[in-house]
Amino acid sequence: MGVVVPIDGDKERGSKQQSATIQKLFDLVHPDMQRVNELIINRTFSDVEMIPEVAQHLIDSGGKRLRPMLTIAAAQMCGYHGAHHITLAASVEFMHTATLLHDDVVDESELRRGKPSARMVWGNEASVLVGDYLLGQAFKMMVETESLAALAILSNAAAVIAEGEVLQLAASKDTSTTEDAYLAVIGAKTAALFAAAAEIGAVIADRPKEEHRALHSFGRNLGLAFQLVDDALDYSGQQALLGKHIGDDFREGKITLPVVLSFRRGDEEERAFWKRSMQEGDQTEADLEHAVALMEKNDALADTIKRAHHYGAMARDALAIFPESEQKSALLEAVDFCVERAF
Amino acid sequence: MGVVVPIDGDKERGSKQQSATIQKLFDLVHPDMQRVNELIINRTFSDVEMIPEVAQHLIDSGGKRLRPMLTIAAAQMCGYHGAHHITLAASVEFMHTATLLHDDVVDESELRRGKPSARMVWGNEASVLVGDYLLGQAFKMMVETESLAALAILSNAAAVIAEGEVLQLAASKDTSTTEDAYLAVIGAKTAALFAAAAEIGAVIADRPKEEHRALHSFGRNLGLAFQLVDDALDYSGQQALLGKHIGDDFREGKITLPVVLSFRRGDEEERAFWKRSMQEGDQTEADLEHAVALMEKNDALADTIKRAHHYGAMARDALAIFPESEQKSALLEAVDFCVERAF
Repeated sequence: MGVVVPIDGDKERGSKQQSATIQKLFDLVHPDMQRVNELIINRTFSDVEMIPEVAQHLIDSGGKRLRPMLTIAAAQMCGYHGAHHITLAASVEFMHTATLLHDDVVDESELRRGKPSARMVWGNEASVLVGDYLLGQAFKMMVETESLAALAILSNAAAVIAEGEVLQLAASKDTSTTEDAYLAVIGAKTAALFAAAAEIGAVIADRPKEEHRALHSFGRNLGLAFQLVDDALDYSGQQALLGKHIGDDFREGKITLPVVLSFRRGDEEERAFWKRSMQEGDQTEADLEHAVALMEKNDALADTIKRAHHYGAMARDALAIFPESEQKSALLEAVDFCVERAF
Repeated sequence: MGVVVPIDGDKERGSKQQSATIQKLFDLVHPDMQRVNELIINRTFSDVEMIPEVAQHLIDSGGKRLRPMLTIAAAQMCGYHGAHHITLAASVEFMHTATLLHDDVVDESELRRGKPSARMVWGNEASVLVGDYLLGQAFKMMVETESLAALAILSNAAAVIAEGEVLQLAASKDTSTTEDAYLAVIGAKTAALFAAAAEIGAVIADRPKEEHRALHSFGRNLGLAFQLVDDALDYSGQQALLGKHIGDDFREGKITLPVVLSFRRGDEEERAFWKRSMQEGDQTEADLEHAVALMEKNDALADTIKRAHHYGAMARDALAIFPESEQKSALLEAVDFCVERAF
């Protein structure tokens, strides 16, 4: 099942971006992220043992913590010198972790980053409730910063994320989903938190509105690019490196851009295949391989990556108004890394 | 299965309280509650159709809206003249509704107030996600009031409620649960929101700290009394009047005070019965009737109601520092109503 997505159609990428790394960003935020990690451990403590157990399971499972890193790097780039960026970054990670716990229940996922998902170990009940607890803790922490502007941004993101998840549920398994509808879903369920995470960096640094908007746009477009690449990776052999099942989305009937493009570009017979396998959930062992073959034939994976490059470029341009700084160049390189990871 | 809990052991209640009504409270808060209801309808609107559908299903299903009424009455009693009590009351109801949606998933409930639960109509997925959406909206609304003190109280309550639910999950089906452990669970999962709902009335009215504390204590003890009565009603014939199954808690193995008391007061044979039927979940049709008979033999239902009277009395005394007012007497009568309902 080892399918490597062809990227040679993508002529605009030079050798510099081929080797883009997130290491520069890691190094810059490392001291602050250690404080974020301490706060996360602190705030998952509870006398109710199951809470730190479940939370720790997720927190230890090797997520990149990209979202809180955005908050830290944005705050640093905006010259912020207080401690609220630590608290807000931890809140952002808690919001994300809560979403993962609830997502796994909704998607009936068995694995999360290559390890059994929390719901497989502790049950759906614990996943729902510990998710609620982390969401409550996230709001408690935000309130402690006393930044009403940051609170407004993050509480709005929480509502938008949940709305996006419901939208995805309603659109789920509909092979006639348009690219726009798909973008609306990932805009809400992924990009909204990236946008909020970056924007609050400028907000707590009390920077002018145009910088809030710039970081919002940066985060949103980075989030879109990130999710597009994720959705392409779900059909790629490289996926195994990330500790995920290949074809999870296919088996769950989740309509992502590679399917949207393949369905639209396919002939009658191909559409019948997508309808049977994804809409009606009538799948055989060989169907995933056939799905990937159709995606290659229709350039669906390569074009999903091209779309990701488009949003990556928008993210880069959004940062243009900021003066040069280590943080800015680390964020720009992180965009390239997200778009190119595992290819 | 029509079991009426004996209340004649409860000599301190005169004929006045026997006829306690919540009508006085209803009438006082009615104009404000109409604005709360409008706001609730407004804020459940979403282009994602499933959201208003699921939310409306719950909102229409005849809940008493006791929690937002507490916020409104407390704010009125504290002489508040703004509009934030409307927004906060709607937030409180959204938090409660979100909890109900998640509870039904966790408990695998088929009915909610006599109607099919949302998860039976739209599935567990929608219940989890619409719950998350309502929680997000609740926080958005709170932030709009710009009251950091109210935000701190409500976000803390959100974390405590979820912690209580996880605690209940961990303690679930353990017949050796102590009364203290049971109180810790209902203190978190029910009383914390009652306490917060009442307290924020004094907070937005900018009253002295002792009034915050008094309303917190009032709400907390009312919440404990309310839940104790609820737990007794689950084994009472009167339960059918409230549109609930009798014995839901029994079937779910949920250890409430009537079981805690029956288990502790019972002999070896009785304890073996509770362990088999609730801890091991090995139940026959006749077991519920036997459970109720054991509760009567051990005065477990009557004593659960007595405990409720104790917390009701504490709630009444907590209000003593407030000068006489229509709101105060309506709240006092509401305590009696909650303790005596359906008996």
